[in-house]
Amino acid sequence: MSAASLAGLFRARSVALVGATERSIWSTAAFANFERLGFAGKVHPVSRKGGTVHGLPAATSCAAIGKPVDAALLMVPEQAIAEAFADLNAAGIRHAVVLTSGFAEVGAEGALRQEALLAAARAQGVTLLGPNCLGFINYADRVPIWTTQPPMPVLQGGSIGVVSQSGATAGFIAGFAHRQGIGLSYQVSTGNEADVNVARVVDFLVEDPATKVIGLFLETVHDAPLLAAAARRALAADKPIVAIKIGASETAARAAEAHTGSLVGDDRVFEAVCRQLGIIRVSCIEDLVFTAALLARTGHLRDRRLGLVSISGGICEMAADHAETAGVAVPRLAEPTRAALREILPAFGTPNNPLDVTGGAMLDASLFARSLPAFGGDPSLGLLACFMDLPDTPEEIAGYRGEIVRQIGKGFAAAGKPAVMLSVMARPVQEPGRALLAETGISYLGSGVLHGLGAIGRAFAWAERQERGLPAAPPAPAPAPERPASEHATLAYLGGRGVPVVPLTLARSAAEAVRAAAALGGPAVLKIASPDIAHKSDIGGVLLNLEGEAAVAEGFGRIMASVRAAKPEARIEGILVGPMRRDAGIELFVGVLRDPLWGPAIAVGLGGIWVEALRDTAIRLLPVTPAEVLEMLSELRGAKLLDGYRGTPGIDRRKAAEAVASIGDAALALGPDLLSLEVNPLRATTAGAEALDALAIWKGES
Amino acid sequence: MSAASLAGLFRARSVALVGATERSIWSTAAFANFERLGFAGKVHPVSRKGGTVHGLPAATSCAAIGKPVDAALLMVPEQAIAEAFADLNAAGIRHAVVLTSGFAEVGAEGALRQEALLAAARAQGVTLLGPNCLGFINYADRVPIWTTQPPMPVLQGGSIGVVSQSGATAGFIAGFAHRQGIGLSYQVSTGNEADVNVARVVDFLVEDPATKVIGLFLETVHDAPLLAAAARRALAADKPIVAIKIGASETAARAAEAHTGSLVGDDRVFEAVCRQLGIIRVSCIEDLVFTAALLARTGHLRDRRLGLVSISGGICEMAADHAETAGVAVPRLAEPTRAALREILPAFGTPNNPLDVTGGAMLDASLFARSLPAFGGDPSLGLLACFMDLPDTPEEIAGYRGEIVRQIGKGFAAAGKPAVMLSVMARPVQEPGRALLAETGISYLGSGVLHGLGAIGRAFAWAERQERGLPAAPPAPAPAPERPASEHATLAYLGGRGVPVVPLTLARSAAEAVRAAAALGGPAVLKIASPDIAHKSDIGGVLLNLEGEAAVAEGFGRIMASVRAAKPEARIEGILVGPMRRDAGIELFVGVLRDPLWGPAIAVGLGGIWVEALRDTAIRLLPVTPAEVLEMLSELRGAKLLDGYRGTPGIDRRKAAEAVASIGDAALALGPDLLSLEVNPLRATTAGAEALDALAIWKGES
Repeated sequence: MSAASLAGLFRARSVALVGATERSIWSTAAFANFERLGFAGKVHPVSRKGGTVHGLPAATSCAAIGKPVDAALLMVPEQAIAEAFADLNAAGIRHAVVLTSGFAEVGAEGALRQEALLAAARAQGVTLLGPNCLGFINYADRVPIWTTQPPMPVLQGGSIGVVSQSGATAGFIAGFAHRQGIGLSYQVSTGNEADVNVARVVDFLVEDPATKVIGLFLETVHDAPLLAAAARRALAADKPIVAIKIGASETAARAAEAHTGSLVGDDRVFEAVCRQLGIIRVSCIEDLVFTAALLARTGHLRDRRLGLVSISGGICEMAADHAETAGVAVPRLAEPTRAALREILPAFGTPNNPLDVTGGAMLDASLFARSLPAFGGDPSLGLLACFMDLPDTPEEIAGYRGEIVRQIGKGFAAAGKPAVMLSVMARPVQEPGRALLAETGISYLGSGVLHGLGAIGRAFAWAERQERGLPAAPPAPAPAPERPASEHATLAYLGGRGVPVVPLTLARSAAEAVRAAAALGGPAVLKIASPDIAHKSDIGGVLLNLEGEAAVAEGFGRIMASVRAAKPEARIEGILVGPMRRDAGIELFVGVLRDPLWGPAIAVGLGGIWVEALRDTAIRLLPVTPAEVLEMLSELRGAKLLDGYRGTPGIDRRKAAEAVASIGDAALALGPDLLSLEVNPLRATTAGAEALDALAIWKGES
Repeated sequence: MSAASLAGLFRARSVALVGATERSIWSTAAFANFERLGFAGKVHPVSRKGGTVHGLPAATSCAAIGKPVDAALLMVPEQAIAEAFADLNAAGIRHAVVLTSGFAEVGAEGALRQEALLAAARAQGVTLLGPNCLGFINYADRVPIWTTQPPMPVLQGGSIGVVSQSGATAGFIAGFAHRQGIGLSYQVSTGNEADVNVARVVDFLVEDPATKVIGLFLETVHDAPLLAAAARRALAADKPIVAIKIGASETAARAAEAHTGSLVGDDRVFEAVCRQLGIIRVSCIEDLVFTAALLARTGHLRDRRLGLVSISGGICEMAADHAETAGVAVPRLAEPTRAALREILPAFGTPNNPLDVTGGAMLDASLFARSLPAFGGDPSLGLLACFMDLPDTPEEIAGYRGEIVRQIGKGFAAAGKPAVMLSVMARPVQEPGRALLAETGISYLGSGVLHGLGAIGRAFAWAERQERGLPAAPPAPAPAPERPASEHATLAYLGGRGVPVVPLTLARSAAEAVRAAAALGGPAVLKIASPDIAHKSDIGGVLLNLEGEAAVAEGFGRIMASVRAAKPEARIEGILVGPMRRDAGIELFVGVLRDPLWGPAIAVGLGGIWVEALRDTAIRLLPVTPAEVLEMLSELRGAKLLDGYRGTPGIDRRKAAEAVASIGDAALALGPDLLSLEVNPLRATTAGAEALDALAIWKGES
């Protein structure tokens, strides 16, 4: 009996099937899976009535088994769960998989039952998978506690660890992968995640030597900080995570909340988390499986320039279009490569990237074996992708189609570069084809052009992300001594934290305002200073471009009168006097907010219409480095404007990025009571960036 | 012997195989295909040497066959083509398929050979498919003149007509469709299109009763006006066209030009043509086949609100996300529907759209038969999509998986609404599964969630497009009496054609300018009038907001001096005086240009940064109706700004659209010597739209 832990659960050598009965398809499937998967341990049916179940004598309780048992699969009705847990305790079983449903997924009452279940598990030191889950299969150690049919055919020795909150979906993913000849190391259904959640399984798989790539299907995120930490460790360990996360649409979010009883969260924040932590986000199972399989087979690709090969010009061109969509470079060939290929191709062929070896390869398949090394020898190429469907039947394999694949295998081997063969359209891999792959040593995906080039694009982007290194780590929480509220105080706080801010003087009289303006040596801006007024311009609280004593003095009086008329109850600290900025510049919006799942995050956008009408912002969790802010800026739809257009100068992106990162750090230092902090605008020019206005909102404020 | 025509070729009842030999895989495949496809006519091997070929006596020439022959398949080397054509003439054969390559696709010399080939065909009255093509299969009449393996399994009675310039790709499309249990009516490879091109085949298929949907794979477009006309007829006939067109990327365009010797054209214009003519554009073979199959099975869907059903909550949610991406509405259920479903679903289920029937359906498959009619009875739903993989084997079909499909079939039949079953992931259809579909009457696509919802979204969008009616028809060419060149003349011309234009007076002296400005009754704009100056502002040729006699007179002199200094050689007509427009408005850019393939087209965008830095324009072929311009405006990334934001008013979209359509009509009326016509800006307000500036460029001008 191992100590309670995920490893202990996943490597259980003896399993009690609690509620075993031949009348249940779950029980029948679970029992059959031990044999199907080649489980080497002991299986103990447990049934109150005793007797023979699944051909074995059934114990009337776990305690009655009379031997140490590593894990139990609970298939009893929800009403019998408490009793079953007591029995686990009596038997000293510290790992449980709970198939039973009727918990948080059915609403408030079920949520209470789930809390009671978790309390029992905690009290007994039980590691609990579920409830409302289908279990797991550990393919590496052949431990299946899984309650439906396993994927057919069953493949061993795979290296993709799949974790899904939806049990049926875990089964669909595994089934699809196996039909494609792609093996898994784990498939885990986490269900309602009362105890074990996706983040903990990811954390486990990062350390698992059999797992090279992690695949996730998420409906919600129950422990965002742990998932973020696990994703950071995965990135550091060069182990990619590919994830589907549903809930981008309002309909799906509504359905998931009905189905799981959990919030799906803000999809834009999850998208940002993926960019930041190098999680590869996909939207369908095909892309999940093919991307994970490509990464599992090729590993981290250092040279990301693609050579495309096909027997059809049309497919070559379609692949080139998809490569561009996927952001993959398809370089032109060097002249010596072209010359070498001219010697090999038929007279009507053209040496090019993509390379159309021509239909001549149907007559003489050695065209592949001869042209691939010449093509792959081009110094501009890092990965070769050759489009050719794997034959399905022994007859095809014995014929010219098999011969073409063998010649591609020879060509790949001689090319001396990473290479994959991809099908032209999505199609499964049959057993005879798998044998041909084993014989030729070819890495193959039955992905088709669309999913195949998508997978290559994602693998390249992930490798690039990995090479950029880890994002800034969250700082240890520190006490927050300050709580600036007014614009003046907030700007002063930011200034003290290294953010360039516009110099402002608080004037309490017209005379003070005139003195402050005179000291500026140019036109001035006057703004009302009040902790109670957020939108100053709307009530006449701002005047721009005032020149000369008279104008400043008159402006002071005009603002005061206007604000007092509009908001007689507002506390007025005075009027802020600052310099008028008139040289060309671009206004950025910087906003820090607190996501309910993920915590403090920062949004950056171009100001004005871009943020207000077009919602064009880039988001990251805090903290961010200036390098990450540079990425954020380049993600904006209006990013081109930052480089200037039609004579207007652009901005110094690096200095703007440093200012944004400093604003993020300053906001983090304010602690968890800060709800939001906006700098709007952060004025950026060729010379630098400067916060012109700031607004902090604290918990308890509206 | 039928008269030369496409119908005569596609329905040939006797075929000569010229260059028949058992040493060629092309000849062998072509001969075998007649038997495989069940060709009921006569096949005549023709070989110079005579003897026995493919088990039949070979004639030494077509003339030597001694009987009328409908069509010939030429497989001889390029050097022997002229002789073969002379033989066709001697034999009176009027239809030819030319497999032979070495023509336009190999460069300039080959293009000359192709011209000679076409001349021979024209002289002999031969309808010619190819050269450099693989032939065609007419499944409806079982006429295969096709030189590689046919798709396996061979399905008859299909209704999708596939036309591809790439022969291998035609084969890939057909192979994929047949593996998915989707039959074709035609597969046609047009190769180099010396004579018969895609447009002509489409034109034929629009009239073909066996063809419900047309699928295209295009590398280039050889007869754009004919294709446009055929697409219009297809739209009018309620027959959808689904098309892949490669060349969106520079790499693919380069590869296609190497491969076909033809320009691929401007992808943005092709995209616009598709929107305008209702051609459904897709980027991969999976989407081509599944979209065409859905449309072939469901026909024109009038009620486009989708109900989603699955056995898995996770798949429900993923489908809802993909529905949103595809632009498909997934409405909430009415309360009576929810109540009815509550009676049917297990206690832990939730009545919702998407509907998760729960894993309970594995125990009791009748959940599907009971819940689908209740669900489908909801008045808000027009199409039901149920996710369930079709089983592959007789064992599976005999088991619970087959039972689920049978129950879905019952549920569909009782629901009384259009309904499709979709696989969860892309997977082929096996023979036992096809039989189950025939038994249950279920429409099924093995598309997976991604491609399936994409197909539904495209089918819905196409139906909506079809219901909007045909786009404006091109007018008959009319003589172009005018050729306005200067801004003044161009604006006057536009004004005469119903375009609202700013009133401008040409002043030849300061005094005339002062008089003209005084007549405006407000501030004036002065602009240099010269046929030689395009960018007036850059050389001080424009002054805004001049008020009073002195300012206008001084402005006149200032512009003249500035322009003469900058461009002493320019012909100066005078200075244009117009009213200063100061009320809020939005500047639009309207440009008419001539596409080398498609002819006159119009682009509309928001002015300034949107066009200049972000290239945000919408394009259509001319003429356009105001309704089409409204669509164009809504396609712009900055479209939201047209409705105003943060207090600024929006514009009257309809009036702006009418002005744009009038500009297009006016440009068309100027005839084919007009290279481009720009109205920039067209100033749009809540009150209307007005052209403030215009520039026409004519052939022969730079």
